[in-house]
Amino acid sequence: MTTGPNTRSLDLNSDLGEGFGIWRLGDDEALLGVVTSANVACGFHAGDPSTMREVCRRAASAGVAVGAQVSYRDLAGFGRRFIDADPAELADEVLYQIGALDAFAKAAGTRVAYVKPHGALYNATVHHDAQARAVVDGARAFGDLPVLGLPGSRLLHHAERAGLRPVREAFADRAYTPDATLVPRSQPNAVLIGTDAVVAQVLRLAERGELVAVDGAVLTVEVDSVCLHGDTPGAVEHARAVRAALADAGVAVARFVAE
Amino acid sequence: MTTGPNTRSLDLNSDLGEGFGIWRLGDDEALLGVVTSANVACGFHAGDPSTMREVCRRAASAGVAVGAQVSYRDLAGFGRRFIDADPAELADEVLYQIGALDAFAKAAGTRVAYVKPHGALYNATVHHDAQARAVVDGARAFGDLPVLGLPGSRLLHHAERAGLRPVREAFADRAYTPDATLVPRSQPNAVLIGTDAVVAQVLRLAERGELVAVDGAVLTVEVDSVCLHGDTPGAVEHARAVRAALADAGVAVARFVAE
Amino acid sequence: MTTGPNTRSLDLNSDLGEGFGIWRLGDDEALLGVVTSANVACGFHAGDPSTMREVCRRAASAGVAVGAQVSYRDLAGFGRRFIDADPAELADEVLYQIGALDAFAKAAGTRVAYVKPHGALYNATVHHDAQARAVVDGARAFGDLPVLGLPGSRLLHHAERAGLRPVREAFADRAYTPDATLVPRSQPNAVLIGTDAVVAQVLRLAERGELVAVDGAVLTVEVDSVCLHGDTPGAVEHARAVRAALADAGVAVARFVAE
Amino acid sequence: MTTGPNTRSLDLNSDLGEGFGIWRLGDDEALLGVVTSANVACGFHAGDPSTMREVCRRAASAGVAVGAQVSYRDLAGFGRRFIDADPAELADEVLYQIGALDAFAKAAGTRVAYVKPHGALYNATVHHDAQARAVVDGARAFGDLPVLGLPGSRLLHHAERAGLRPVREAFADRAYTPDATLVPRSQPNAVLIGTDAVVAQVLRLAERGELVAVDGAVLTVEVDSVCLHGDTPGAVEHARAVRAALADAGVAVARFVAE
Repeated sequence: MTTGPNTRSLDLNSDLGEGFGIWRLGDDEALLGVVTSANVACGFHAGDPSTMREVCRRAASAGVAVGAQVSYRDLAGFGRRFIDADPAELADEVLYQIGALDAFAKAAGTRVAYVKPHGALYNATVHHDAQARAVVDGARAFGDLPVLGLPGSRLLHHAERAGLRPVREAFADRAYTPDATLVPRSQPNAVLIGTDAVVAQVLRLAERGELVAVDGAVLTVEVDSVCLHGDTPGAVEHARAVRAALADAGVAVARFVAE
Repeated sequence: MTTGPNTRSLDLNSDLGEGFGIWRLGDDEALLGVVTSANVACGFHAGDPSTMREVCRRAASAGVAVGAQVSYRDLAGFGRRFIDADPAELADEVLYQIGALDAFAKAAGTRVAYVKPHGALYNATVHHDAQARAVVDGARAFGDLPVLGLPGSRLLHHAERAGLRPVREAFADRAYTPDATLVPRSQPNAVLIGTDAVVAQVLRLAERGELVAVDGAVLTVEVDSVCLHGDTPGAVEHARAVRAALADAGVAVARFVAE
Repeated sequence: MTTGPNTRSLDLNSDLGEGFGIWRLGDDEALLGVVTSANVACGFHAGDPSTMREVCRRAASAGVAVGAQVSYRDLAGFGRRFIDADPAELADEVLYQIGALDAFAKAAGTRVAYVKPHGALYNATVHHDAQARAVVDGARAFGDLPVLGLPGSRLLHHAERAGLRPVREAFADRAYTPDATLVPRSQPNAVLIGTDAVVAQVLRLAERGELVAVDGAVLTVEVDSVCLHGDTPGAVEHARAVRAALADAGVAVARFVAE
Repeated sequence: MTTGPNTRSLDLNSDLGEGFGIWRLGDDEALLGVVTSANVACGFHAGDPSTMREVCRRAASAGVAVGAQVSYRDLAGFGRRFIDADPAELADEVLYQIGALDAFAKAAGTRVAYVKPHGALYNATVHHDAQARAVVDGARAFGDLPVLGLPGSRLLHHAERAGLRPVREAFADRAYTPDATLVPRSQPNAVLIGTDAVVAQVLRLAERGELVAVDGAVLTVEVDSVCLHGDTPGAVEHARAVRAALADAGVAVARFVAE
């Protein structure tokens, strides 16, 4: 279930249910045919209740794991702006979102299987110790939920310390620096262009446990899941190509949590 | 647990946790020392996550039942304005709120024990069949939750049909019409004035299963719970006087759901 | 500027700026090349500040009149659900929205030139006297703003009584009942199918001041503006075809308020 | 109108209209009898339309200047949390709020006379160059509005550069560091205790243009306005005592902008 020299299984995750009210974003139905884990928006950056219900229903029916994609409370900013939230309040906001989503997951015959922070909260919890701990506190208050995040992040550090399973992820379409962090989106080469580049990055990761950084350096990384973006042009095609390439290479695509 | 000629036990419920962010409303701590069931705001008309956590913690510690006080999504109107919500969406909004609250209830060692609609949704579900059904659908999607409402309401009708326990309530401080409905707040005598009148109404209800309507008619009613308002002047004194009078009269005050 | 037997000029209006944050709706740029009046969302059902600024900038540059498309406060329901708002509060909400939009209109070198209620508020103000008056009160509190609405509506009645110019509109793509009201959207034939039907309805309205009801009855109606929807499939094509057909027929398309 | 060795006139400002919907905060009516400038919440951290209208009406009637107390969009956090907002979007949010408030000010016979950022945005604009500039951009897009802020802040720097009048303020009840910045609220002595200390600080400022820092150092400062907090216990008494003491000392209390 982990990448490395002999990886034979990998999880694929994607952000889903990111509409709100009348507004839609991404192609949930198509992505649910590709990924094994669905990061479902919980109402704070996106995700109205009826969308949450529908995504949970489809995910459960497709055997896709439901994860709580928790966020700062910021519909206007789509959760993409850092908010200097009080850690205790942030933990409560995380717990609120998990609980709300779990009601829909249970109604669909499944349950919330993991937590993944969204957008600016994801980025913050790489280095912001107090907010990373707050997300873990919220997850632990709900139960023994695995936490999905960047390898080496404060988030996974605190998850592990709290006895929650840390789930390490890489990004299929993002470029990496020589020290295995993401090239910031403000730089021109932050996102891989073209299906071939995306597929190649995932395949190398799955088969050899390696990433090639922007300067050509080969990095050894172990990950449990690969994130496929759903809101970019060509997202669905990339996702399908990645899944097909993994199948061709004999790498099983499987959720990191049992059904 | 039900009023009537030989009532020896009655539940007292009140709305709690109705602040939001910096704003506070009512005296939660005092009321938690009086009531046996707490209708906790779930974030749609009031109730931020940290307030929800705190009310659940105190309620659990005091042995007070935690109920989901579900509402239309209307912070600006405090849920007091009818919204012609689509029933399917309303059911999902109800489920969302129950799930969110249950996470805090569970973290406090208890669980959501019942559902009660708030404000305009409460009033709507007396007669509005589709919205009454939507609230019941949301409650049933969560599990076998008792539903608190007005005797004779469509809400309790649908709860019963759906196999959920209907919990009938009267209001300690509201005047009744000869046909056992509430005198509308737009009329001058809608609310009982003075602690004596409030105590007398609850005592007669508890001891004889009777309400005296505004025209002097004596109505026979059976209720399982009495609602004490917490946001009016003198609310806490009324609540304490009611509880003391019931104790003097030998009527046990006990939650309608077991701990 | 009014339809009738010798109409030679007609205003075309459409809803614009109806995205929010990351979410988009409709093709604002294309529609601004067709219409003469832009009903700009003001933040209550849609429309974030940056979208409002951009639509005002483009409208001013294209000589399109900027109207305040005021709504109930209901992002989650896109303003499509009736809210039983207190009339005094509703008037204040209308004034708030007009003021906010006017800041962007002025920054773009123009001003708010009229008011049009959106969605459920539009529908409510056809018959709901107090809410119709509230919208007019909000508009009048801002200044002498024309009010766009359905002929015969309480809205236009109160606008006229308050000394505001009532601007009558018809819908290009909606079917009419024999008494000149819209066929409800709940009925299957509520919306005209196909560009030809839409164009024919507008042409007949412009050239003869007539509408053909669903039962074939010919209705005589005078309108000052025709509403082109922007959020339906084919909306832009319909709009362009209508504009082209009016040009071919020698009907000038011109805003109902001077620049 | 400016403090200094011979100050004979000073403006007093306070935050007003900071309720939302059913929730209230502070004693607007009492403070309007004391201050000469009202920083009115505009709906982003507090302030519903009806509250805005009412505060504007009372302020206009009392001859108190109406200022736009602009904030991050953050009702849940009362605007007290830094948000890493995009500067262009922030400028638009500022303009939106000013425009909305101006509609109420105009309806009350006055106008928005100045802009003051609230809470975390106030603090951010002391040092955060891009956000300070964004607030100024929003104010300038509306018109030639004075900007109220901390002496030496990036906010006042950019206001001056943009040709807007910078209005310098001190805080009546806050302690100062030796370099004339506020002692952070996280420190125990951040807020002056007792009416005497508050009155003494304002008197010395008004009569001698001096502040005494926490270490006893005497600082020479020139300010145009003094901020009286309205949301702390004893706020109204402090405010009245300050005003009375200034009257006794022969210092005129007058708004910094003409009526």
